[in-house]
Amino acid sequence: MILIFPHEPDPRHRVRLTDGRADHIRTVLRATPGKPLRVGLLNGPTGCGTVESLSPTEVVLACDFSGPQPPRPTIDLLLALPRPKVLKRLWAQLAALGVDRIFLTNAEKVERFYFDSHVLDPDFYTERLVEGLQQAGDTQLPAVQVVKKLRPFLDEELAAVAPGRRLLADPSGAQGVAACFTAAAPRPERTLLAVGPEGGWTPYELELFAAQGFTVFHAGPRILRTDTACVALLAALAVLSAPNEY
Amino acid sequence: MILIFPHEPDPRHRVRLTDGRADHIRTVLRATPGKPLRVGLLNGPTGCGTVESLSPTEVVLACDFSGPQPPRPTIDLLLALPRPKVLKRLWAQLAALGVDRIFLTNAEKVERFYFDSHVLDPDFYTERLVEGLQQAGDTQLPAVQVVKKLRPFLDEELAAVAPGRRLLADPSGAQGVAACFTAAAPRPERTLLAVGPEGGWTPYELELFAAQGFTVFHAGPRILRTDTACVALLAALAVLSAPNEY
Repeated sequence: MILIFPHEPDPRHRVRLTDGRADHIRTVLRATPGKPLRVGLLNGPTGCGTVESLSPTEVVLACDFSGPQPPRPTIDLLLALPRPKVLKRLWAQLAALGVDRIFLTNAEKVERFYFDSHVLDPDFYTERLVEGLQQAGDTQLPAVQVVKKLRPFLDEELAAVAPGRRLLADPSGAQGVAACFTAAAPRPERTLLAVGPEGGWTPYELELFAAQGFTVFHAGPRILRTDTACVALLAALAVLSAPNEY
Repeated sequence: MILIFPHEPDPRHRVRLTDGRADHIRTVLRATPGKPLRVGLLNGPTGCGTVESLSPTEVVLACDFSGPQPPRPTIDLLLALPRPKVLKRLWAQLAALGVDRIFLTNAEKVERFYFDSHVLDPDFYTERLVEGLQQAGDTQLPAVQVVKKLRPFLDEELAAVAPGRRLLADPSGAQGVAACFTAAAPRPERTLLAVGPEGGWTPYELELFAAQGFTVFHAGPRILRTDTACVALLAALAVLSAPNEY
């Protein structure tokens, strides 16, 4: 899918592309004039874009955004800010898997300099999130919030931004993630998943989460790298919370 | 966990490390003499390695491999050979997630030159698989087989190497992966998961798989990049096939 930004279409719904999307249409999709392509309006509906003209420098699409708007994902992610190299790999994957809100938080075992990395620059991550959305055929850009102070965020802000069930992956959990989704526990509309730093949350941090109603689960017998763990847990949650869709 | 190769211990179970493992012990684990570390013997038992000496160039461990041997993973993966860049990212993640056998196969939509890539060099991938095992605390090195001819492999070899259930992820699937694990269908001991190339399997290839008893499932409404898809599907299978462990 080719994602179009809301400011891009002219009044007649024509879009002139000159960036990587034009290259993709020419070299990967090998489109020719008249060919209809799947398009989506960022945070809006999907639709069809017909190639009007192609040149080595630009592609013009006549767009019709009359398709459905993809539903907002029902999973939010609270992630202790990982190493920049790991986060760089994660952005597109998170958008592709479908995360509605991404909270990147401080933690005792998060190095302070991670917060100065260019991977937290909105221009940098928006490009990668858009790449993930295009891959997955979604239009809903995840909302990203960088949280430098964990405690006030958990105590004062979390209730307003993340209603629904709260789960926290930690080796101290007595149950696995599947046990959080038994017949006895009704499936919530939304789930917030918390994933810690590579060195784990401290006992003090675990107490803060417990006070906010997070259910702790262990993520199985194998310890995974943060990026693998996020993808694996989001996939497990997707299957467990929407077994009819996955 | 520090993974030791079977030829490395001397007759008194001492191991002299001079490579990345020595760096890891010095700089990440910050071990000092006398410190016990988790160790594992490749394809063998786990145990304890006590630091005997450290220098800028080597670390000597006195090992005791009296721990349990991790069980072999129950999931095998048949993967249409992905782009070298994608496979490079996947190796460590597959070993960390726990895959017993990895079959990398040809397909109509696999470019031939992928087979010439250095990422298929056993020295290259073994190093990355070991990295993933160390991360996960496992000792069982996945067996890798490169399959240049799909049809004879499916028709003649598969039965011997992959007993158990056979699942194939493809958008043509009428059911999701969760539906493959209903109460009516008993949980098999082993599962072989087949994942196609980015352009998908051809109808002819899908017929070959169907003839070998593969159940086709769709992997949900979102299209994922091959590496994200593999991690997500392996995680979903882990949760569905061993809900008491995950």
